[in-house]
Amino acid sequence: MPTEPACHDDPVISKSESVRSYAVVGAGAVGGFYGARLAAAGHRVHFLFRGDFADAKRRGLTVESPLGDVRLGPEKLLAYLDPRDLPPCDVVLVATKALVPNPAGELLAAMLGPETEHTTVVTLQNGLGIEEELAPVVGNRPLLGGLCFLCSNKVGPAHVRHLDYGGISLGQHGPGAGAQGVTPAMEQVAEDLRGAGITISLEDDLVAARWRKLVWNVPFNSLSVLLDALPQELLGTPATEALVAAIMAEVQAGAASEGRLLDEASLQSSIERTRRMAPYRTSMKLDFDHGRPMEVEAIVGNPMRTAAAHGVDLPIVATLYRQLCFLDARNRSDRATSRLG
Amino acid sequence: MPTEPACHDDPVISKSESVRSYAVVGAGAVGGFYGARLAAAGHRVHFLFRGDFADAKRRGLTVESPLGDVRLGPEKLLAYLDPRDLPPCDVVLVATKALVPNPAGELLAAMLGPETEHTTVVTLQNGLGIEEELAPVVGNRPLLGGLCFLCSNKVGPAHVRHLDYGGISLGQHGPGAGAQGVTPAMEQVAEDLRGAGITISLEDDLVAARWRKLVWNVPFNSLSVLLDALPQELLGTPATEALVAAIMAEVQAGAASEGRLLDEASLQSSIERTRRMAPYRTSMKLDFDHGRPMEVEAIVGNPMRTAAAHGVDLPIVATLYRQLCFLDARNRSDRATSRLG
Repeated sequence: MPTEPACHDDPVISKSESVRSYAVVGAGAVGGFYGARLAAAGHRVHFLFRGDFADAKRRGLTVESPLGDVRLGPEKLLAYLDPRDLPPCDVVLVATKALVPNPAGELLAAMLGPETEHTTVVTLQNGLGIEEELAPVVGNRPLLGGLCFLCSNKVGPAHVRHLDYGGISLGQHGPGAGAQGVTPAMEQVAEDLRGAGITISLEDDLVAARWRKLVWNVPFNSLSVLLDALPQELLGTPATEALVAAIMAEVQAGAASEGRLLDEASLQSSIERTRRMAPYRTSMKLDFDHGRPMEVEAIVGNPMRTAAAHGVDLPIVATLYRQLCFLDARNRSDRATSRLG
Repeated sequence: MPTEPACHDDPVISKSESVRSYAVVGAGAVGGFYGARLAAAGHRVHFLFRGDFADAKRRGLTVESPLGDVRLGPEKLLAYLDPRDLPPCDVVLVATKALVPNPAGELLAAMLGPETEHTTVVTLQNGLGIEEELAPVVGNRPLLGGLCFLCSNKVGPAHVRHLDYGGISLGQHGPGAGAQGVTPAMEQVAEDLRGAGITISLEDDLVAARWRKLVWNVPFNSLSVLLDALPQELLGTPATEALVAAIMAEVQAGAASEGRLLDEASLQSSIERTRRMAPYRTSMKLDFDHGRPMEVEAIVGNPMRTAAAHGVDLPIVATLYRQLCFLDARNRSDRATSRLG
């Protein structure tokens, strides 16, 4: 049930009922992919770039994909550098890295003026506590979380290569900590994304969905960085196979501390699916290998702290967290050094 | 109170009362250092080499040290390749790596014939469970454990560079699991080593001494490998500083599970000493960097299993153990591959 579509930025363009305007905050491997597909499906998509802005203006945005390549030439690409320059849109997709503080906070604050009161904000960021951090900026607007099961890399400036998967699990954030059910805002965004060829799963309970994704993300992101390994290698050695299972059990305990019961069978099937996956590097491993800051707090620290706040210690997750903090700090100081040098 | 000295291998050589014969099993960075110092102090020392035998025969054994270099030329060096060729000795120093199975088991079995019933065996190996594994081979002979606080590297074939420290904490193994006090065998070996310029601490309770050493070895050996870091770097980052303390607390809990109470102050002083240490790589890090098997079972696995056998889980130690098993297995298979290639 779509609401009245509205494109606030360019009232002279005629639109079909189902065409909405999107802003993509962070046009990298995730935002570039989804934004380009929405644009190809006929939506008006505004991309907020950072480092790649000049290249995007000059050469446009390219997304290679087994679903079909999308190429938005410079003449078609709506590229921005300053968040204040973006027009009000129906939907904002937040696809920056979930660092601390969340860089999306400041960007949304610059974008969400009074004329955006009907804008829906969708965070496509990994981890836990994302919506909670952004909620004060989003205010009364609908705030959704979208968990992306996507294998996609940025291979050059404004150049994304989509390798596999691409589905999104979409859920509604609060009010309150409980399940919010499926809301009209979710239905609208899902319709657009499905129209763009994206598989959407509507989640009654965003918090439960986030924990379910953490069951995979905590062990495989962490260990792939700490042991310089692919997920399949970790499962191919008995010691780390047992460690993955033990970490998953702790994440399950963390979910339970928030009243979210994840069943045993889904943990096991997550392991079995991973054995059959193509050997992709995890997002945290990609960040680490490129000397970029890692999403340690969102993916590992926040689940650990959430469980602790409910009186549940996760000693293995805490160990991974401290190990990753060390590597992340060194990576950042190396980068600072090489910038000075 | 030395017993009657005896040198079984060469009865025509005259000896002073305090001169004993030694066999050094594993003449590397540890065995080479202590053996050369004993030889320089006038003891008759037989060295069992493995890969370095031909070099040792040709060029002798060189130990560089701030305490004074020792050079045993080919004409003076008693070098052996086959353990069956060593004569019976008063003392056998075991200084091979503590791998699984302990390579010293087979070597001692070949050396400890009926005419060695008065031989004292001293294991200079790291970790826990060392004496327990070797005890069946050693039989009724005195079996001591010597914990070496030594910074020494093998820099070439039969060429050792001693950098710092060198003291040994010496204790008596069983019968039974309790403290054995200071025994005549300990006094004898201590007298010889002190005469060779080595600082000796006589330990009432070998098991407690082994756990005390593990308080340092478990966190710093493990994390130095897992995070490619020096001990001081680990203490210089709050996250890993806290992790080191948490690991030490688990080792303390492991010791308590065997009835050995390590006081809090000694843990803290171990951390403070480490801050002031020169930046040496740990023994496990040296092994890892050289693609050699690591002492994962002796240093990390055995303490974990000992505590578990007493009903105490050490979840952080178990995490380190599983991570190290993964790296060790990969290192060994890399080595196998490069040997094939």
